[in-house]
Amino acid sequence: MPMTSLKDLYVDELKDLYNAERQIVAALPKIARAATSAELRGAFQEHLEQTKEHIQRLDQLFRKLGEKPAGKECMGMKGILKEGEEVLAERTEPAVKDAALIASAQKVEHYEMATYGTARTHAATLGDQEAADTLQLTLDEEKEADAKLISIAEGTSNPEAAENA
Amino acid sequence: MPMTSLKDLYVDELKDLYNAERQIVAALPKIARAATSAELRGAFQEHLEQTKEHIQRLDQLFRKLGEKPAGKECMGMKGILKEGEEVLAERTEPAVKDAALIASAQKVEHYEMATYGTARTHAATLGDQEAADTLQLTLDEEKEADAKLISIAEGTSNPEAAENA
Repeated sequence: MPMTSLKDLYVDELKDLYNAERQIVAALPKIARAATSAELRGAFQEHLEQTKEHIQRLDQLFRKLGEKPAGKECMGMKGILKEGEEVLAERTEPAVKDAALIASAQKVEHYEMATYGTARTHAATLGDQEAADTLQLTLDEEKEADAKLISIAEGTSNPEAAENA
Repeated sequence: MPMTSLKDLYVDELKDLYNAERQIVAALPKIARAATSAELRGAFQEHLEQTKEHIQRLDQLFRKLGEKPAGKECMGMKGILKEGEEVLAERTEPAVKDAALIASAQKVEHYEMATYGTARTHAATLGDQEAADTLQLTLDEEKEADAKLISIAEGTSNPEAAENA
């Protein structure tokens, strides 16, 4: 087994993110369809387009590094999305369903926030400030997506859901 | 299949957290032993003690609700810790190993931050402010643990790791 360097670790993190984003692109249309509030459905659809852009950014980083993005399955995202599938399968009041979808989506966002944050730091440590800036841009968008989910949860979904508690 | 209420969703979130915290308690001693920097090892050991306290707090919430904490496997945490096991198995320079352990631990912290945040919001929506305050206390400690990992990564682990890149 070869010795892993920080560069190897960084490339591995990018592969983890690439696979995670692709899992999200595959899952989001179903999640958006399950949302009952139009605002939440719109937020998921918007995030789907954003996620496709995040994949393109990662593609560019891989090209620059001369590495292939494939070859890693992100088990963290797999587990999180498996939990999300259970939410989709449950019979609930619409507002409770939306609250559960938001909870699942926030787990997804937080996984990405942690991983983009680490990759950004490692890119900077390795002296690739341009890559660090690209990763920071996506990180900021993931944080915004999380903040939007919180505002939807606090603004509409939860008070209605509480009535069905 | 019975209709799920916000209360059911909230209890389910507490069960998810309970199982996640127990998985963390089982995994942390091995993770702490793998850390090479004394500061990082100390941070993991401290977080192990804190995690045991978080479980006690959840136990109290379950008692108050008249519910049992068992019966749910947190698949998100399972996936994240499975990735962490791969890190433990890899042959790396000590500073790179520490950087990888920090990356894994931040994923753990972020999963908890997302889930405690949601459970706190749902407790408040359900009118149980005391439970919301308890969950907020743990959430704050998870955020502090994440911030501590970032400061260790930026202060010591990464510059050394970069030398081996």
